[in-house]
Amino acid sequence: MEWTREKRYLPYSKWDALTLLKLQSQAARSEYQLHYHIRPMSGLLNDPNGFSYFNGKWQVFYQSYPFGAVHGLKSWVHLESPDLVHWQNLGQAVLPDCDLDSHGAYSGSAKAIGDKLFLMYTGNVRDENWVRHSYQVGAFMDQEGNVEKIKEPLIKAPDHVTEHFRDPQILEHDGKYYAILGAQDAETKSGHISLYRAEKIEGPWEDLGYVDLPAMGYMVECPNLVFVDGKPVFIFCPQGLDKKVTDYQNVYPNMYWVGESFDFDTGHFETKQKAPINLDEGFDVYASQAFNAPDGNAYVVSWVGLPDMTYPTDEEGWANCFSQVKKLSLKHGHLLQKPVKAMKSLRSDKKPFAGHHLMDLGNQTEIKLDIHRGQEGTLTLAADEAGEHGIKLHFKTGNGASLTVDRGEAGEAVNPEYGTARSISLPENEDLSLRIYLDHSLFEIFIDGGREVITGRYFAPKGQIFAKMSKGVSYKGKSWKLKNM
Amino acid sequence: MEWTREKRYLPYSKWDALTLLKLQSQAARSEYQLHYHIRPMSGLLNDPNGFSYFNGKWQVFYQSYPFGAVHGLKSWVHLESPDLVHWQNLGQAVLPDCDLDSHGAYSGSAKAIGDKLFLMYTGNVRDENWVRHSYQVGAFMDQEGNVEKIKEPLIKAPDHVTEHFRDPQILEHDGKYYAILGAQDAETKSGHISLYRAEKIEGPWEDLGYVDLPAMGYMVECPNLVFVDGKPVFIFCPQGLDKKVTDYQNVYPNMYWVGESFDFDTGHFETKQKAPINLDEGFDVYASQAFNAPDGNAYVVSWVGLPDMTYPTDEEGWANCFSQVKKLSLKHGHLLQKPVKAMKSLRSDKKPFAGHHLMDLGNQTEIKLDIHRGQEGTLTLAADEAGEHGIKLHFKTGNGASLTVDRGEAGEAVNPEYGTARSISLPENEDLSLRIYLDHSLFEIFIDGGREVITGRYFAPKGQIFAKMSKGVSYKGKSWKLKNM
Repeated sequence: MEWTREKRYLPYSKWDALTLLKLQSQAARSEYQLHYHIRPMSGLLNDPNGFSYFNGKWQVFYQSYPFGAVHGLKSWVHLESPDLVHWQNLGQAVLPDCDLDSHGAYSGSAKAIGDKLFLMYTGNVRDENWVRHSYQVGAFMDQEGNVEKIKEPLIKAPDHVTEHFRDPQILEHDGKYYAILGAQDAETKSGHISLYRAEKIEGPWEDLGYVDLPAMGYMVECPNLVFVDGKPVFIFCPQGLDKKVTDYQNVYPNMYWVGESFDFDTGHFETKQKAPINLDEGFDVYASQAFNAPDGNAYVVSWVGLPDMTYPTDEEGWANCFSQVKKLSLKHGHLLQKPVKAMKSLRSDKKPFAGHHLMDLGNQTEIKLDIHRGQEGTLTLAADEAGEHGIKLHFKTGNGASLTVDRGEAGEAVNPEYGTARSISLPENEDLSLRIYLDHSLFEIFIDGGREVITGRYFAPKGQIFAKMSKGVSYKGKSWKLKNM
Repeated sequence: MEWTREKRYLPYSKWDALTLLKLQSQAARSEYQLHYHIRPMSGLLNDPNGFSYFNGKWQVFYQSYPFGAVHGLKSWVHLESPDLVHWQNLGQAVLPDCDLDSHGAYSGSAKAIGDKLFLMYTGNVRDENWVRHSYQVGAFMDQEGNVEKIKEPLIKAPDHVTEHFRDPQILEHDGKYYAILGAQDAETKSGHISLYRAEKIEGPWEDLGYVDLPAMGYMVECPNLVFVDGKPVFIFCPQGLDKKVTDYQNVYPNMYWVGESFDFDTGHFETKQKAPINLDEGFDVYASQAFNAPDGNAYVVSWVGLPDMTYPTDEEGWANCFSQVKKLSLKHGHLLQKPVKAMKSLRSDKKPFAGHHLMDLGNQTEIKLDIHRGQEGTLTLAADEAGEHGIKLHFKTGNGASLTVDRGEAGEAVNPEYGTARSISLPENEDLSLRIYLDHSLFEIFIDGGREVITGRYFAPKGQIFAKMSKGVSYKGKSWKLKNM
């Protein structure tokens, strides 16, 4: 089947229900399907949207194209959770059904206002010449999930940006509303974060110019401003960033920048950090969305999937997933990302992870390991019975300490042109703490209490459910099977 | 919208995907939606089908009409569970897509044979004059969920039955295959259970006549033969049964008959029981399916919903649910139905149920109560803040002991023409043990270790989440909140 433009932008009402039912069943039955991460009911999932707290529950939405593993006409699918771990899929919530989002209800954010959840998102419109127009749309969702869209755009793209102007994050500060957006400067074609302010949520919205950060690449997508331990932190996706600024291996990186202060009205960002830092040192994290929750914490959730990439499940008609939600904190100016407490409620069947024989851990698993200082070896995850193929974690905890995660022998190749391995350096001669989550086709590796996270998809043949530690390594460990969410 | 015959039998491929997405979202968001019981993704759910153990997991299917709360073109939706409590919906499995089931893949059963799950079900076909033809169809489902149908019917209706000939249950005994089916005798227009035998699963299937039970009403639906503690037990739905035989209040009852022995080759059923007994003393149980599992136990699961009835969620485009799975045993010739062990894994937030004030229990709850002998009073469940409206359990545990469950003041009326209350008598001057499950719009009340079960739907206004015991009653109790499955 060829995914022509016409096909990708066919209205949902022109697709037949039987095709959708078959796609949903195919996705549910996939060997690679996630069981405790947010995943698409069918088709393609991309950016997290509207991550918020409302009506006594956590809310998140995903960018959805329900009819195949391609980027087509997008809508928002809504999920709700009591604990940031157990999510219930409530179905399509924001449909591309008006003049302001005729070619897609694109990414955006949400904020509880009164007894409604206010949504602000990018309406994607293509004109008859297929020229893109981006409108920043407002909508109110009530407690029953009814969405009422505001008929006029909250923000139209100003003259100083190109048509690449999207992904509004809505913020409240000192009784006023602010929004930040990813923007491409019209003159320089470089990436920025635009800042807007409004007295009332419906506007008028005033253009305050760009946030005071260096221009990055040719575009910045999905900007977030979140306060972590009192410091402003920007999390964003610079496209085309010079690797001399900060090195990265993925097609596009997801990065963060910690500041000392942020002036909402001038956009001035005071920072000691010289360059952005990779949010995740793995293979597939993008479009992360973070917010300051009423419980006083900052949380982040990511799309595990990258623009312009393909994945082995594409041929099953579904693609991608979310990361688990992570709690943010700061340590020495560095962002820590930790699993939320409720992740422990998934645990069952605790076992020691010990010895150097092959262990049957299944593929829905948590592993905690403390590898002692001065060691060198390899931990193989999602291994076959011979213990040969799998995800390889090569570690050194002595001098020149490092960790390399190689998924090159784990199964079907995943975008190998961007490299099969990712490496980080570790503090020398220190114990290494690893907390590892496996969910059928996803690994999330938390290093030293979340100082680094290495996330990636893998697509192993059936039966690769073992783990093996190389001989002679001194370590302690335990593992759990994890329940479905 | 009018549900014309044409509309109800429209092929799934003629429905549009947007309609289906909206129906799915509407069902997921319903206040009345079940959270730890099997429920339809959209539209109407009816009979459990194919309840079995295969591929290391429990299997069940539901009769599905996805496009509204009406009986239309039916398919099977597949669910799988590791523990009989946590079910994962795998989507449509048996579609009405061949000459033998063109007007519906109707009810049937399943049996693991080799590395396939063999399905035997009734293919519903209407000819150009809308005359019904019933074929008993065979199909093999592989471990990936691919279904291959056998092109010729396994069994065609014999001359001695009318077009009402359906719901095959497949059984294995002494190296041969047997099937029992609900049948209407052509001459007497009375209800029977037909018995068939085959050496090979694909046939030929030999008509062994009717099982040696009295004719019951004008039709018997959904017959099951299950061995409980070594005794043969028939579970079935007689339609039009004379209430003098066994009294019942629902439009159609679901009943059982315990025997001493069953001769598979003659159909002779040796029994001391004089008349069938109601399987459930409540309002809405029908089409129960039971089977002997490899773990040595017999389990049953029911449709909570009745033919020809309407329910308040019809206007939300979805209807009905399954009961929880119950384990069967026998005591003094009487069937006991008990929650399975894994139901305990749903528990959290244990609280004493004590005092006679209003208790906030929520609507996803388990309650265990021991009411002492010689008491009389009322327990109100799903009560409002005044403790006035709700599901009323009136009990007497002294002389003339009885329990009456009245849902008449619990909220929206549910088929009130069949009465709002159900009563049973209890052993006199004995303590009464109740184990009660609430799931938003469903109650399941297990009495004295499952000697009786009273199941029903209720549709209370939002906020009716309290429970109250009338003053002066001597009892002990505790409660739990229950997690989503």
